[in-house]
Amino acid sequence: MALQFVLIGGARVNERRFEEDIRVEGHIIDSLILPRVFDAIMDMGGDFDVEEIRVGRSKKEPSYARLKVFADNEERLARIITTLQDFGVDLVSAGDARTVASPRDGVLPEGFYSTTNLPTQVRLHGVWVDVADTEMDLVIVVDWEQSRARSVPIDEVRAGDQVVVGHEGVRVIPLQRERQREEFSFMQSNVSSERSKKIAIAAIAAEMRDCREQGEKIVFVVGPAVIHTGAGVYLSALIHHGYVQALLGGNAICTHDVESVLFGTSLGLSLTDGTPVAGGHQNHMRAINAIRRAGNLKQAVAQGVLTRGVMYECVTNGVDLVLAGSIRDDGPMPDVITDVVVAQKEMRRAVRGAGLVVMVSTMLHSIAVGNLLPATVRVAVVDINPAVVTKLADRGSFQAVGLVTDAELFLRQLCDELGVTYPERAAEPSAEPGAV
Amino acid sequence: MALQFVLIGGARVNERRFEEDIRVEGHIIDSLILPRVFDAIMDMGGDFDVEEIRVGRSKKEPSYARLKVFADNEERLARIITTLQDFGVDLVSAGDARTVASPRDGVLPEGFYSTTNLPTQVRLHGVWVDVADTEMDLVIVVDWEQSRARSVPIDEVRAGDQVVVGHEGVRVIPLQRERQREEFSFMQSNVSSERSKKIAIAAIAAEMRDCREQGEKIVFVVGPAVIHTGAGVYLSALIHHGYVQALLGGNAICTHDVESVLFGTSLGLSLTDGTPVAGGHQNHMRAINAIRRAGNLKQAVAQGVLTRGVMYECVTNGVDLVLAGSIRDDGPMPDVITDVVVAQKEMRRAVRGAGLVVMVSTMLHSIAVGNLLPATVRVAVVDINPAVVTKLADRGSFQAVGLVTDAELFLRQLCDELGVTYPERAAEPSAEPGAV
Amino acid sequence: MALQFVLIGGARVNERRFEEDIRVEGHIIDSLILPRVFDAIMDMGGDFDVEEIRVGRSKKEPSYARLKVFADNEERLARIITTLQDFGVDLVSAGDARTVASPRDGVLPEGFYSTTNLPTQVRLHGVWVDVADTEMDLVIVVDWEQSRARSVPIDEVRAGDQVVVGHEGVRVIPLQRERQREEFSFMQSNVSSERSKKIAIAAIAAEMRDCREQGEKIVFVVGPAVIHTGAGVYLSALIHHGYVQALLGGNAICTHDVESVLFGTSLGLSLTDGTPVAGGHQNHMRAINAIRRAGNLKQAVAQGVLTRGVMYECVTNGVDLVLAGSIRDDGPMPDVITDVVVAQKEMRRAVRGAGLVVMVSTMLHSIAVGNLLPATVRVAVVDINPAVVTKLADRGSFQAVGLVTDAELFLRQLCDELGVTYPERAAEPSAEPGAV
Amino acid sequence: MALQFVLIGGARVNERRFEEDIRVEGHIIDSLILPRVFDAIMDMGGDFDVEEIRVGRSKKEPSYARLKVFADNEERLARIITTLQDFGVDLVSAGDARTVASPRDGVLPEGFYSTTNLPTQVRLHGVWVDVADTEMDLVIVVDWEQSRARSVPIDEVRAGDQVVVGHEGVRVIPLQRERQREEFSFMQSNVSSERSKKIAIAAIAAEMRDCREQGEKIVFVVGPAVIHTGAGVYLSALIHHGYVQALLGGNAICTHDVESVLFGTSLGLSLTDGTPVAGGHQNHMRAINAIRRAGNLKQAVAQGVLTRGVMYECVTNGVDLVLAGSIRDDGPMPDVITDVVVAQKEMRRAVRGAGLVVMVSTMLHSIAVGNLLPATVRVAVVDINPAVVTKLADRGSFQAVGLVTDAELFLRQLCDELGVTYPERAAEPSAEPGAV
Repeated sequence: MALQFVLIGGARVNERRFEEDIRVEGHIIDSLILPRVFDAIMDMGGDFDVEEIRVGRSKKEPSYARLKVFADNEERLARIITTLQDFGVDLVSAGDARTVASPRDGVLPEGFYSTTNLPTQVRLHGVWVDVADTEMDLVIVVDWEQSRARSVPIDEVRAGDQVVVGHEGVRVIPLQRERQREEFSFMQSNVSSERSKKIAIAAIAAEMRDCREQGEKIVFVVGPAVIHTGAGVYLSALIHHGYVQALLGGNAICTHDVESVLFGTSLGLSLTDGTPVAGGHQNHMRAINAIRRAGNLKQAVAQGVLTRGVMYECVTNGVDLVLAGSIRDDGPMPDVITDVVVAQKEMRRAVRGAGLVVMVSTMLHSIAVGNLLPATVRVAVVDINPAVVTKLADRGSFQAVGLVTDAELFLRQLCDELGVTYPERAAEPSAEPGAV
Repeated sequence: MALQFVLIGGARVNERRFEEDIRVEGHIIDSLILPRVFDAIMDMGGDFDVEEIRVGRSKKEPSYARLKVFADNEERLARIITTLQDFGVDLVSAGDARTVASPRDGVLPEGFYSTTNLPTQVRLHGVWVDVADTEMDLVIVVDWEQSRARSVPIDEVRAGDQVVVGHEGVRVIPLQRERQREEFSFMQSNVSSERSKKIAIAAIAAEMRDCREQGEKIVFVVGPAVIHTGAGVYLSALIHHGYVQALLGGNAICTHDVESVLFGTSLGLSLTDGTPVAGGHQNHMRAINAIRRAGNLKQAVAQGVLTRGVMYECVTNGVDLVLAGSIRDDGPMPDVITDVVVAQKEMRRAVRGAGLVVMVSTMLHSIAVGNLLPATVRVAVVDINPAVVTKLADRGSFQAVGLVTDAELFLRQLCDELGVTYPERAAEPSAEPGAV
Repeated sequence: MALQFVLIGGARVNERRFEEDIRVEGHIIDSLILPRVFDAIMDMGGDFDVEEIRVGRSKKEPSYARLKVFADNEERLARIITTLQDFGVDLVSAGDARTVASPRDGVLPEGFYSTTNLPTQVRLHGVWVDVADTEMDLVIVVDWEQSRARSVPIDEVRAGDQVVVGHEGVRVIPLQRERQREEFSFMQSNVSSERSKKIAIAAIAAEMRDCREQGEKIVFVVGPAVIHTGAGVYLSALIHHGYVQALLGGNAICTHDVESVLFGTSLGLSLTDGTPVAGGHQNHMRAINAIRRAGNLKQAVAQGVLTRGVMYECVTNGVDLVLAGSIRDDGPMPDVITDVVVAQKEMRRAVRGAGLVVMVSTMLHSIAVGNLLPATVRVAVVDINPAVVTKLADRGSFQAVGLVTDAELFLRQLCDELGVTYPERAAEPSAEPGAV
Repeated sequence: MALQFVLIGGARVNERRFEEDIRVEGHIIDSLILPRVFDAIMDMGGDFDVEEIRVGRSKKEPSYARLKVFADNEERLARIITTLQDFGVDLVSAGDARTVASPRDGVLPEGFYSTTNLPTQVRLHGVWVDVADTEMDLVIVVDWEQSRARSVPIDEVRAGDQVVVGHEGVRVIPLQRERQREEFSFMQSNVSSERSKKIAIAAIAAEMRDCREQGEKIVFVVGPAVIHTGAGVYLSALIHHGYVQALLGGNAICTHDVESVLFGTSLGLSLTDGTPVAGGHQNHMRAINAIRRAGNLKQAVAQGVLTRGVMYECVTNGVDLVLAGSIRDDGPMPDVITDVVVAQKEMRRAVRGAGLVVMVSTMLHSIAVGNLLPATVRVAVVDINPAVVTKLADRGSFQAVGLVTDAELFLRQLCDELGVTYPERAAEPSAEPGAV
């Protein structure tokens, strides 16, 4: 029950051409994969014959195409094929993936294959095998004996690891647009502030409820503006009510959250009336010192030094808290991981299994997390700066909703949509003035 | 009960210097006026002697200073004095203002005095007289017989009008910082998105209640993003509950408001779920046609064509609606004033007597209105683009609160703070599909 | 020499379905038109059979598809067809376009067809006829006797004009991506500041040379930042050397250009060293007065009041200068068209026949001009604000290059690329200090 | 030859007031210090008597004021005094600074004094001593035996270190505006893109020449956009000609610089024509691998792997290169310091002795470096994003020039102003295609 292309007419004269048969399958027409394949071949100076096309008739039925690709030299052909593989194209003739041993710890063999953030398979002993731990810009290390493959950062490659080289025996599974319009992604790649955010926030709330029902992790990546704007109470409430399984941030959100709890200020400004507090610019250093003196956040909670706020809720609700350091940090807080490579590993671990990642008001951490995510994970990026939202939405094809809006009002509205309650007035500072 | 400067020691040798005695009074030290006077004189190559300073001791008591200003030529001295006058400095020797007749309609005499947006006085027959209709970049036309003066745009100057020239007999009254910290202005010239907007919105709400109690006009200047984001319901509610006495905008807010009421879309996107509606990009033209066919907005309401929304509330609540055209308009709507000079006059009229002006998501109209406002009117500028907020806060010294935030969530929160209720769900489109 | 789809297998049961045969031709696969047609039908709740597909084999050869579209009610089918027509789809059964007489001046009949900015044809007496004066959001008025059709703004429709209604007998010709990569468009819809602008500027320069050789008009749309940044000398040089046939702007660029020539300032800041000049904030009013006194720009040049600058070069080189007013204007200058509807007409006239439109640092005028342009005209949008560039690149599919960069350095570099010389130092102010 | 305030009239009744005598000296009136002192006292609920004021008469002569500050309780008085000290106010009664031993490594005693970025002195054994290594948000550790004090980050405080607590015996020396207008700072805190950048760039070039003559270090802090935009050739030329003594950046600028040299791309886009190169997104990983294989940058230069570019010029010209890691890094390059605390130390070392710091297109590294700088160092911040420039200009009072402009065209123009030559065409990639 399908349509089929049949070649009508003429053969071509084939003097000195290099060719490769490829095939591609799935929602290749409505996902715009096939047209992009045609384009890419021609853009790169190649040519092609369409050997066969079958177009799916029903919404669920996949389509299929088989092409013969030509180029005037082998190198050009190789470059074309490499590019096509990112669209999910598969070599008809594909043999096994080729691997070469890594020459030294942290050094790759020539011609290594660099991964995308799309689901990827390699052919080992004639069988297509899923590559574990999908992530962008890694390499694939193969265990030929176990017929297993996984993505590995260059820094973790050890001498002798069998690293995939070239493009043979590798294929990626591109994300395909489904026929049914999806609520969550309706704003996909929309970064305008001129759309209704209320609708978008309702969709994110629905997604969060859905994740919780299905036991998937919800990860929040947050910047200090959440605290500066007084939105800490909303985030605390979301954590308290079980809507956050992992929280990723940096030294600043931790410091200002503690500052807000102990002194009622953020960056020295009163959270009650927005005015500068005398000597308030020193409060964040006092907050850091208070936690350092206690030992760390957990001990500060145990000792009664920290009695509420975002960090408190993380500690008391068993949230997976990853605080990654940066060169602009003061202190830092004792819970902050100062080595960025170690921090990346922890972040990678924390996002594994996430059903939804919500990024609020942090460019650095959001980009870092975005780099680590497979394209299949849903992401909501919330920032008042359209440049941040655009930058994140552009970084690969993960399923991102971009919201150019105010973090404070966003989190408040998100609580309202989820029926999560929060205090209307900021609590009194818990530290005695002058103390600490 | 004041302090007094007493000159200790030496006179100066005064070869070939031009001098002028000036005085300045008020909160000149804490309003930073005196230091700016010192700076300006030196920056412009002049010099000065402080003849007398009296510093107010209590918070209410004004200070006073008298200076002798020197320069090495007359032109430089004139330039210095001109500059100082914008700080509120007053010539000790001041005679009457000088006027010259306008040579032709819309043409000014040489050396005309160009106004600031600060309260200004001219000396006529030895008496300081207030200049009516304070506004930036106008000229002062004097009626010597009646001893009256008013600000007039160049375009409205008629041949023979007595226009003030030079700086003599003119003084401005600078805004002075009061000692008591004011709630409304605490964020003055603050354009950060990283502060709590909830606090700021509460302050604006308080100001609105205050205006209403005191019978002062509240003016809203609004752009179409209010409609695109679905915030029309909040603005409608504010109008309905009497919180808006004048509404200034353009063709776009009118068009999209009508579109949203008739078709449930804004710019062709559904306000219910944010998705594009088939053929929806034509809806704004159909909305324009519907009102043109009815005659104008008022008639459309009378004929039952327009049954709710921002325009409907303006018509039915007697709000002073000024829609000013721009070159990017489609249509336009029949109520739009297409001549910009006429539109300016109408806007000028509408803002007179305003106690508070709230500008939401419109750069063009906000700048235009900002140009027309005296510095004494309080202004709240709300835009998600910090550049717009900065640009407006920079345009003269009017008492501006800048809020970098989301218009939709701002208006919703403002309603909540004022206890104004609004429907949670968008109403059904009132026009039949395909109609109009 | 083409491929052909042949239906394999099963008919469908057709209970109560409404159907319409459509066809589409051209580079419909690589221009992504066909996939978008598939998508649109399904998104809107319809269904389709692919009756025939022929894929062009060579790069020049067009493809062709014929589809049967189904929907469960007539209205839905009509909406689907309307949407498809914007992709260039053509009804197989197409009869003539239908027209209804306009009921009143400036009012349209129900169901009027609203134009896109793509080349459009209507079928009159069985023949496809080009619609003259392509522009977005207009209506099509038909002269049945002469078999002619043209786009008309609603405001210019007269009672009795035959206005096209519905979608029958109307088709648009979508822009199709050509196979050969084009230099000019390589950055299409690219708004990043993180690409080499030097390359882009070279491409624009090449395009300008090309226009000149082919006798096409180059239109510049410019904002006052060109003058504030001291880039007036570069723009003047471009005009002087014949690279600008029409200049569109507003009161501000005219005012500040004249101010810069007469007083050496722009907005009161010295163009020599960037510092504020004493009393300089009055200079723009003096500039306006100087031209008003002379009569207008032409007379100011004739009288020797205006001796160089952008306006001077426009006058002396016969450039088509259209200055459109806005509500934020001071003055205005006598050459400014204050009625926005009249200004639109003049702008429309001025851009007709343009080969390239370069928009520099003006959102208002750029959007206004963008609205008037057919999609086929090439446009370069230059602004330091990415939001402006994005907004313009998004407004329809005209062939836009977006450059997020500095207007001043852009124009300087553009001169360098074109071999156009300019003075390195600003000239002395031509007006005597204190004069005017 | 000075003016003196003499108290005229009445004493005050002093029931239960706490008081402290303070004095302040310098350009306290024209630097707006005195008015800010008045304001701060009143804003914080205190009161004051002016005991004596002497106003400097000549431009060079300092002014002096002595005040008695009152408050109704001791804590409020302490807070007021703390705040005033940041303005450079000095306690008349000042005894020695008080210190308390640090209880544990990395933990501070209660009430520690947190530093500003202004020159600071502490009183030790009755003598005012300069605090070494001025930097914001550090603490002061005193060596009582040697009568020495220095600023230390909390992380480097060791148990037993004598840390200054409270505000007694501490004073800061505020930056004072000098009377002569300075060329470099004329744009101080100006972030507009609507000013002439040519003038500003000329001023920066002059400052660079000046630094070189006086043997002061010029430090560049740079982001990867410098490479993406093709401006690497200009930066390389500046380094080559001795205009850069230290270069601070991250993994990205290093990676993309090496990528551009080896493969002629940046982020996979050709630097020759701006188009994507087949498989180009893998080039940055290949660049990292190439340097890792060589060992590090120095060895890559020695082995002939790296033959030009920014990194090459740093290595061959002995520039102090500090590459600080961040959590979004790929790889990273072997020269990158992955621990952020270690990186901060290295950056701190590198900027010591800088006469000028030029920050181009990097928010993260610029803020980090800004935090480490004393307020006395001149800084030029160049970014196309006004938010970045504003953020940096706001961070303390260092002498910052903010330029909202295009990094590529800025660097090109800077070379032109300095007479530094650069190649007009990008060099050929040095790596064989497919290699690495």
